[in-house]
Amino acid sequence: MINRHREDTIAAIITPLGVGAVSVIRVSGAGSFQATDSIFVGKGKIANSKSHTVHYGKIVDEKENKIDDVLVSLFRSPHSYTGEDCVEISTHGNPFIAKKILQLLLQKEVRQAEPGEFTKRAFLNNKIDLIQAEAVADVINSRTEASLLGARNQLDGLLSQKIEGLRSMLINASSFVELELDFAEENLVFIGYEELQQKIDRILTEINDLLSTYSFGRVIRDGVNVALVGKPNVGKSSLLNYILKESRAIVSHIPGTTRDVIREEVSIDGVLFRLYDTAGIRNSENEIEREGVTRSREAVKNADIVLFINDVEQGFSNEIYSELKNLTNSDRIILILNKIDKGLKNNLKEGIPISAKTGQGIDALFKALKQKVFINSNYTEKSAIIANFRHYQCLKKTKEYLLNAKESLKNKLSGEFVALDLRNAENSLSEIIGVVTSDDILNNIFTKFCIGK
Amino acid sequence: MINRHREDTIAAIITPLGVGAVSVIRVSGAGSFQATDSIFVGKGKIANSKSHTVHYGKIVDEKENKIDDVLVSLFRSPHSYTGEDCVEISTHGNPFIAKKILQLLLQKEVRQAEPGEFTKRAFLNNKIDLIQAEAVADVINSRTEASLLGARNQLDGLLSQKIEGLRSMLINASSFVELELDFAEENLVFIGYEELQQKIDRILTEINDLLSTYSFGRVIRDGVNVALVGKPNVGKSSLLNYILKESRAIVSHIPGTTRDVIREEVSIDGVLFRLYDTAGIRNSENEIEREGVTRSREAVKNADIVLFINDVEQGFSNEIYSELKNLTNSDRIILILNKIDKGLKNNLKEGIPISAKTGQGIDALFKALKQKVFINSNYTEKSAIIANFRHYQCLKKTKEYLLNAKESLKNKLSGEFVALDLRNAENSLSEIIGVVTSDDILNNIFTKFCIGK
Repeated sequence: MINRHREDTIAAIITPLGVGAVSVIRVSGAGSFQATDSIFVGKGKIANSKSHTVHYGKIVDEKENKIDDVLVSLFRSPHSYTGEDCVEISTHGNPFIAKKILQLLLQKEVRQAEPGEFTKRAFLNNKIDLIQAEAVADVINSRTEASLLGARNQLDGLLSQKIEGLRSMLINASSFVELELDFAEENLVFIGYEELQQKIDRILTEINDLLSTYSFGRVIRDGVNVALVGKPNVGKSSLLNYILKESRAIVSHIPGTTRDVIREEVSIDGVLFRLYDTAGIRNSENEIEREGVTRSREAVKNADIVLFINDVEQGFSNEIYSELKNLTNSDRIILILNKIDKGLKNNLKEGIPISAKTGQGIDALFKALKQKVFINSNYTEKSAIIANFRHYQCLKKTKEYLLNAKESLKNKLSGEFVALDLRNAENSLSEIIGVVTSDDILNNIFTKFCIGK
Repeated sequence: MINRHREDTIAAIITPLGVGAVSVIRVSGAGSFQATDSIFVGKGKIANSKSHTVHYGKIVDEKENKIDDVLVSLFRSPHSYTGEDCVEISTHGNPFIAKKILQLLLQKEVRQAEPGEFTKRAFLNNKIDLIQAEAVADVINSRTEASLLGARNQLDGLLSQKIEGLRSMLINASSFVELELDFAEENLVFIGYEELQQKIDRILTEINDLLSTYSFGRVIRDGVNVALVGKPNVGKSSLLNYILKESRAIVSHIPGTTRDVIREEVSIDGVLFRLYDTAGIRNSENEIEREGVTRSREAVKNADIVLFINDVEQGFSNEIYSELKNLTNSDRIILILNKIDKGLKNNLKEGIPISAKTGQGIDALFKALKQKVFINSNYTEKSAIIANFRHYQCLKKTKEYLLNAKESLKNKLSGEFVALDLRNAENSLSEIIGVVTSDDILNNIFTKFCIGK
């Protein structure tokens, strides 16, 4: 399916739909200039114009009715986004006009672009690799500074270079084994057992390092789930409201009823935190409350961080704490002691002392939240990190094949087994950047794109 | 206020906000190239590039961090939208990125453009006249074929030419009177009384023709209000639903409770019809119903067309009909006879026989609706029509001054009175195209624009 229509000229509206000053329609493929010229009236023909120039004129329909004044930019293959001949038509920002012009194009041997098809063509024409193609969607969908930076790094090839490096190492190791197989009858030895094992170990170390960035990369890309848990009246909602006010960057507000888990998204220092105000996690007799308890427990299980809130008045709840430790890993829990504006009356376990009323201690809480995210990440702005589940899976498969290869070496199995494992490992690695890839994988990736990209 | 910041370089995001493939930021003013070069890294400087060329590169922040890959187009004065040096920066379609780039520009002697400011500059730099500037907003906001065509014609100068023509006629007439005043002592006569009156009458005829297009122009631009009225159970809601289904172009759906007037917008043959399903217009004892009756009566009073629906079962309601005729002009009412699928049992007054159940007669109803809109309009696609209340008011003032002038002529008043009337008439006419205009008028027009236009 991927390659079947690859020769078609395609078009789509590439600006968000809605009323604005300007809308843009992109056309890509060998027929772009001809199709555009058939509806465009300007000083000259687009087909005769230089690449990277802009032309004022009007779009007319089959009856020569003017649809709009436009600016047409053209890009000649291979110097365009897709690598093909490309045209961008800039119109007045009325969805109605943009759709009308798209319709006119679709009558001229041009078809509507599928979601992600422009980027898919950029990939198929070797303008970018698969990691970069996926990064385009991430760049567009980023909602915080950190996620944007991660996606930008990926688009700029940071991860691609890392994977390419690992791939060369793997091909190098593999080539010695293959050589030995080729010359098996002559009993030549091109690489020693120990040396090969060392080579594989070095690759494994790098892969393990990369795999370990995933939990961090994932939250940077998709956001951090934070569950607020505690007895009634410890001030969960007050804390939530204070955070929303303080972060001053409410990304979205998803209203819930009192029975639902309330969710808010905020950006703290460029990282997206998704806050869930849970109702309660202890069993209840009341059927409606029971439903709430089930949902709250789900929220805790799915949380990357749990804020366990107690207050100076009610003291530390051991019951809820032990319940929490059944539901999640202890090192995900941050202990909070609220209402310190009322004075520290109780003998309390450790916890960050805060007041959701006065704002005291909230900075320390933000610091603790960020620490949980950045812990063990060794993150610098120029690190290659794994943030995409597909990349994570491919890397894990690569690792398994390498471990198999090591096992085969250790058990002195025939070189053919080792060679097969290394070949499989290389394939899995290549799948990440798209050197080898199936139509299914490509479709799966690009159909998640928005139309026009 | 209008001209104070006219020398500033301004910038705004000109694509609709939202996630898409591409966002565009426009910069306009003498500092556009310099400001862009200070955040853009490409093969060469924008300031040294040719007009109407596109340049690939990246936008970087003050720390040289890459914000995004972009395409930068430049347009040298006067060959740009605003008539000034102009830059358009095309980024990945993430509102976050576009805002970030705008922020970077705002640190470089560039300020945020006010709503409509790009178009205002186009007007102030004589790229377009005021009618055309107003047409830009209409083009962007058009929601149907007919309103778009009207706005496009206006943007293309159809109305401007008409007004310019009237203005020359008026200046011509006026000049003879002024000449006579200049040579008053010599008692020269440059134009006869009759000839001047004829000239004024000719202008008045044209103005009256143009004024008469307003009711049509207004509905084409803003839509036609249609109230559905009738006894309970005559099938008002069924008819509404059938129209929505049949027109297949529901523009929007504004939900209402049973007590409210329900409003739906549909496009029939390119014209926007706004349908109001009224509850009842006869007095009621019930307080809640009384509120509904008040609203329904408002809907009828504001309606351009009233569909008065009766059915074969209940027969014609003379009570409602006389009530209706108190509320609106008879020639706005279209009589409908519904449920003809049940057979014509009653002796009925005239009305379009329909069945909202089977769809019979709906085409005739659509035809009647369109006839009411296009009646007396003499509309051809290339007619200059008045669709804007400001233009209508200016034209009416022009007419009044001309009538005054005629009156002065008739009463043989001094030539100075006639001259003053004609000058005032010319001023009112000139106000339409913006030859003479106040800052207040301009602000009033452009603040209604969206930002980025």
